[in-house]
Amino acid sequence: MATTTLLNTQKKESRWGMTKKNVIWKRKDLLGLEDLSADEIALILDAAKSFKEVSTRKVKKVPTLRGKTIVSLFFEPSTRTRISFELAAKRLSADTIGITANSSSVLKGETLKDTAKNIEAMNVDVVILRHSTPGAPHLLAKVLGPSIINAGDGAHEHPTQGLLDLFTIKEKKGTLKNLKVSIIGDIAHSRVARSNIWGLKKMGADVTVCGPSTLMPVGIERMGVKVTNDLDQAIEGADVLNVLRIQVERQKKGLLPSIREYINLFGINRQRLKNAKDDMLIMHPGPINRGVELTPDVADGPCSVILEQVANGIAVRMAVLFLVTGGKE
Amino acid sequence: MATTTLLNTQKKESRWGMTKKNVIWKRKDLLGLEDLSADEIALILDAAKSFKEVSTRKVKKVPTLRGKTIVSLFFEPSTRTRISFELAAKRLSADTIGITANSSSVLKGETLKDTAKNIEAMNVDVVILRHSTPGAPHLLAKVLGPSIINAGDGAHEHPTQGLLDLFTIKEKKGTLKNLKVSIIGDIAHSRVARSNIWGLKKMGADVTVCGPSTLMPVGIERMGVKVTNDLDQAIEGADVLNVLRIQVERQKKGLLPSIREYINLFGINRQRLKNAKDDMLIMHPGPINRGVELTPDVADGPCSVILEQVANGIAVRMAVLFLVTGGKE
Amino acid sequence: MATTTLLNTQKKESRWGMTKKNVIWKRKDLLGLEDLSADEIALILDAAKSFKEVSTRKVKKVPTLRGKTIVSLFFEPSTRTRISFELAAKRLSADTIGITANSSSVLKGETLKDTAKNIEAMNVDVVILRHSTPGAPHLLAKVLGPSIINAGDGAHEHPTQGLLDLFTIKEKKGTLKNLKVSIIGDIAHSRVARSNIWGLKKMGADVTVCGPSTLMPVGIERMGVKVTNDLDQAIEGADVLNVLRIQVERQKKGLLPSIREYINLFGINRQRLKNAKDDMLIMHPGPINRGVELTPDVADGPCSVILEQVANGIAVRMAVLFLVTGGKE
Repeated sequence: MATTTLLNTQKKESRWGMTKKNVIWKRKDLLGLEDLSADEIALILDAAKSFKEVSTRKVKKVPTLRGKTIVSLFFEPSTRTRISFELAAKRLSADTIGITANSSSVLKGETLKDTAKNIEAMNVDVVILRHSTPGAPHLLAKVLGPSIINAGDGAHEHPTQGLLDLFTIKEKKGTLKNLKVSIIGDIAHSRVARSNIWGLKKMGADVTVCGPSTLMPVGIERMGVKVTNDLDQAIEGADVLNVLRIQVERQKKGLLPSIREYINLFGINRQRLKNAKDDMLIMHPGPINRGVELTPDVADGPCSVILEQVANGIAVRMAVLFLVTGGKE
Repeated sequence: MATTTLLNTQKKESRWGMTKKNVIWKRKDLLGLEDLSADEIALILDAAKSFKEVSTRKVKKVPTLRGKTIVSLFFEPSTRTRISFELAAKRLSADTIGITANSSSVLKGETLKDTAKNIEAMNVDVVILRHSTPGAPHLLAKVLGPSIINAGDGAHEHPTQGLLDLFTIKEKKGTLKNLKVSIIGDIAHSRVARSNIWGLKKMGADVTVCGPSTLMPVGIERMGVKVTNDLDQAIEGADVLNVLRIQVERQKKGLLPSIREYINLFGINRQRLKNAKDDMLIMHPGPINRGVELTPDVADGPCSVILEQVANGIAVRMAVLFLVTGGKE
Repeated sequence: MATTTLLNTQKKESRWGMTKKNVIWKRKDLLGLEDLSADEIALILDAAKSFKEVSTRKVKKVPTLRGKTIVSLFFEPSTRTRISFELAAKRLSADTIGITANSSSVLKGETLKDTAKNIEAMNVDVVILRHSTPGAPHLLAKVLGPSIINAGDGAHEHPTQGLLDLFTIKEKKGTLKNLKVSIIGDIAHSRVARSNIWGLKKMGADVTVCGPSTLMPVGIERMGVKVTNDLDQAIEGADVLNVLRIQVERQKKGLLPSIREYINLFGINRQRLKNAKDDMLIMHPGPINRGVELTPDVADGPCSVILEQVANGIAVRMAVLFLVTGGKE
């Protein structure tokens, strides 16, 4: 059973070769990777490793969270993150309820806090929140008893995406320490970038961010990353290329000159990779704009671990659901 | 196990201090509180008391309705009622399917009866119906084998809301008999008001309704309630203030002079409560228009049992689902 | 237990009186009835017979697909087919996830193949696909490991509807061989018609198609059916009348002269049935345009098996889910 394995894991040497010093998960919530220690991140990654095996069984289900109620409360549309969490919850045997902003009484003018207080009154164990306002999950975490998992708050953080990226890199490379990771694209608007940077830096990786100046946040260097507008420089020597999705809508706001120019400068194709390391990983949080961020031959090529990221997303989310609910009792 | 406890409860003295004369639930449907006897209402409230405990367990789930199929068929948008029923069903281990008017083939011009007959053909046990036409659930109950639960039919009845209000009052006050309950707001358009009035009168409470004349139905006195336009009079001596949600849309139809005037005359704030009983309960079916029906300090104050209403909603709905399915075999 | 019964069934004489020659289901997918042999169709119908009983039990649930993940991916709106599959899956104890085009990241410009590859990466066992493009499920079946079930691809096939129609006829008539089945209406745009024709012809039935010339596909005779524009001719001697839904929208495109004229020529009422066999079955895939394809007295009359089709839909879909998942291991 995954649960007992995990509890044991927490008390001895990590199977990933990292000393855990008997770290025990104590947090009610998962709000962002900025708040977590390296030990806590390592603990989640270890737990995810145990849970990954569940999804490959004939019977993909463990009774770990039977009788727990998990609500996903999404104020922004999402398919992949919502479904990934829902499958994670179901494979842990939890009961799940999905609320999207369209169908929510939020339409009737109720405040986020009122909505959340009502959900809490229903004896819910976990609320998975996606909201366009940075800090919305932090606000709820303070006023609610149930665990809050941030599934994306504006351009701030998307911690489970960051964790699944870390998990995927570590699974492939064995470690995160001293790896060179380049993140390419619209850094300014990307919660995926922020969670990756926080997580990677804590785990000892070197991070470079690369994109158009108009999409590069002012003062990003203070997060401890290298900044460049030169894709070739970001590729050279990199162990991992994490390529962000470009929002074509940015063009209207004058932040992108043209898609054609973006492709010329930052689009990844086989030619641009000629100086890349042979075993460099290509990652993307999806959904891919094929032919924009990545050409199909690169997206589907031997270096791509994009679909493995999807598979690992479920394992990481199972681990997080397990830890935040267990951490409370 | 809640089930056996309940069955025993039905055969002896009620724990709520009311003689039950061995009342056994015999109805296939729950259509409204107008139809129910005081004994039947007391039976539901007793069953709800047993089920309330389930939602506070670590494993919030009993196998009572395993293998039963419960369909919620909502022709009007709703989040809280739909989710409350869905959680109630899941905590009883039933399988649930949700159909909303948007996604329903009703869009293709099918009649309500055809939709319902098709659902029946799928060997469904319970249909939870919300519909804008008063009497729609009564029509279905006549032609369908499965149990019908009315989750709101126009301005007619919303019996599970009425029951959860009764449950909450009785839990706090010990009895409903001779309590003074004032219902404030748009009485004319409120199914919540009607179900409360039927239920409270049957259980021996004194009911006063209070609101603008334009939102007071003609002949409401015939339901056995006192009528007033004076909020202070409705508050004085009341044990419970059940404050209805005001639909801002009514203003367009000329039924409300202005929101500002409504607030002046019928909005509840601390000042208006200066002559209220110290232990008067403040209730609201939600979602609250904060600053309109209730100021935040009142909505969140020590007299407010609004969030307890939400919690009790699940217990009452578990009881109703249990009784209507068990009543059939 | 349904499962063991089924396995035995496959190795001996069919209870339906047809020699199965130890047919074992070997297909990963169910894409259409055109591909299936008569033996394979008979195997599904036999399995459905076993599963039909499950939906009449007090506990309508078997553990057959516990821990399997079934995703319905619907790019066209549907209530009845989606719910029928969802109930089938739940009664087999599978975990289900529903994705509709509205909420899907397909909106963000992702290709169908990308969406499907992402779903596959989540270790899903079955994808139930409805798509407006003929052949979409065939495309996915080639590139995906999970089983694909076609829930309707444009005007091409809707195999589970065809199978439930065959099941219903066979249950009522004992056999499909040499039965006279007339399909009435918009043959050109009907995937239901196509799946019925393929299935019925393979099982030895005589098929006549009848409808306006503008709604009759060119070369339909090559499918081995008789073609007529004369409803009386289609009715006379028929054992089954399968009446298709007419899309009122066709009128705008000039394919239908007027609804009134369609009713005059092809609408079924009691008068039109005066020369019909006494035991002729009336079928309709639903939802019915009452007063157009069928008058209410016919739709609800003694010959109508329309609601039995709905009930049988769940049994057939349970059988298909069981076979495609079992066929893989």
